[in-house]
Amino acid sequence: MTKNKTKVIKAEAKILQANQNYANQVRELLHKTKTDCLNLISSPGTGKTTLLVETIKRLSGEIRCAVIEGDQQTSNDAKRIAETGIPVVQVNTLQSCHLNASQILESIQGFALNEIDLLFIENVGNLICPASMDLGENEKVVLLSTTEGEDKPEKYPLAFSEAHTMVVTKIDLLPHLRFNLKECENFARQINGKIHIIHTSSFTPEGLNAWNNWLKKRIKKHL
Amino acid sequence: MTKNKTKVIKAEAKILQANQNYANQVRELLHKTKTDCLNLISSPGTGKTTLLVETIKRLSGEIRCAVIEGDQQTSNDAKRIAETGIPVVQVNTLQSCHLNASQILESIQGFALNEIDLLFIENVGNLICPASMDLGENEKVVLLSTTEGEDKPEKYPLAFSEAHTMVVTKIDLLPHLRFNLKECENFARQINGKIHIIHTSSFTPEGLNAWNNWLKKRIKKHL
Repeated sequence: MTKNKTKVIKAEAKILQANQNYANQVRELLHKTKTDCLNLISSPGTGKTTLLVETIKRLSGEIRCAVIEGDQQTSNDAKRIAETGIPVVQVNTLQSCHLNASQILESIQGFALNEIDLLFIENVGNLICPASMDLGENEKVVLLSTTEGEDKPEKYPLAFSEAHTMVVTKIDLLPHLRFNLKECENFARQINGKIHIIHTSSFTPEGLNAWNNWLKKRIKKHL
Repeated sequence: MTKNKTKVIKAEAKILQANQNYANQVRELLHKTKTDCLNLISSPGTGKTTLLVETIKRLSGEIRCAVIEGDQQTSNDAKRIAETGIPVVQVNTLQSCHLNASQILESIQGFALNEIDLLFIENVGNLICPASMDLGENEKVVLLSTTEGEDKPEKYPLAFSEAHTMVVTKIDLLPHLRFNLKECENFARQINGKIHIIHTSSFTPEGLNAWNNWLKKRIKKHL
């Protein structure tokens, strides 16, 4: 290993430790206010924002949600979430390829956490880098769309081993694709034998039932 | 900025300089052997490998191709390419989220470059990190599938400003999607006014014509 690489690794270890301290503070605050928190991780274009918009509409009146939106650039996604009427903060990570816990700690200062049951963190679209960062969430959720191919769990294993739950999005497109859902799920289970799998479609009436029911059960337990 | 961050940035600058030295060596070798080289960048699941497999089959006998496959894990993609009968090297980047030029320099030692007209580098599926690394290629090509949404050029601008060419894949799925192709292309042109856009479908007979014709013209000029 070169001297420069060693220096980077040592300094990065310190940054990771600082991140862990922030993550612990986030977790403590969320625990105090009984706010559940899910950190959503996927490739760009898997449909995270669309899933959130449709979910929030359906849960309205039952679960009080808030969202932290992570993107390198633009506040497009926060605008889409804000239209649903719930609290949302946009974080632009600029050069960085993932959110970090200090950004989450700063963002939640803007929320009345006592009045929020469920905080969604929509991470930057990237199936690699966000998987290794603790943001203080209760659970990482990895999303994979039916258009992305079966072998993604094998090729990007960390996201699938870190997540307890895998959401397969765009199930309605299956008839138009050469995508073997069973094979994909087998790959995910080879990486993480305990992974919980939910199918969703944001554009069909019943497409979010399983996902919404799972969220409601979580919140009941959490409160 | 914290002291640790400053240390990381300084050490990273040295690593980037080392990368640039390797990239220059790669570029020199490719120039000597008149080998054209394209560095393909996209999200996971955009269809890079499928596009390459179908392209190589069609160009067989006309253009002598080779491929360097970058993935965090597995040699799935190299196996798919190897079935076409052309030279291929798989690089597993493990924790790293992109290929680097030293990996390319090492990989091309395994090829008889004098006998290769066109070297494709398929980068790790990631729309962010690979965009900032020079691998010694002649051109970066960014791929975006119709299933990923219109606003990706706005949200991940570096990949679209670094690339001269944008390939829109999975054009055959358009009738089944809520995807506004014109809007997407406008976003790309706002980032990069000179970007050259090609539409492809790897599963229809005419879906690769524009792409293959563009490759053939490049090679004619290059030889």
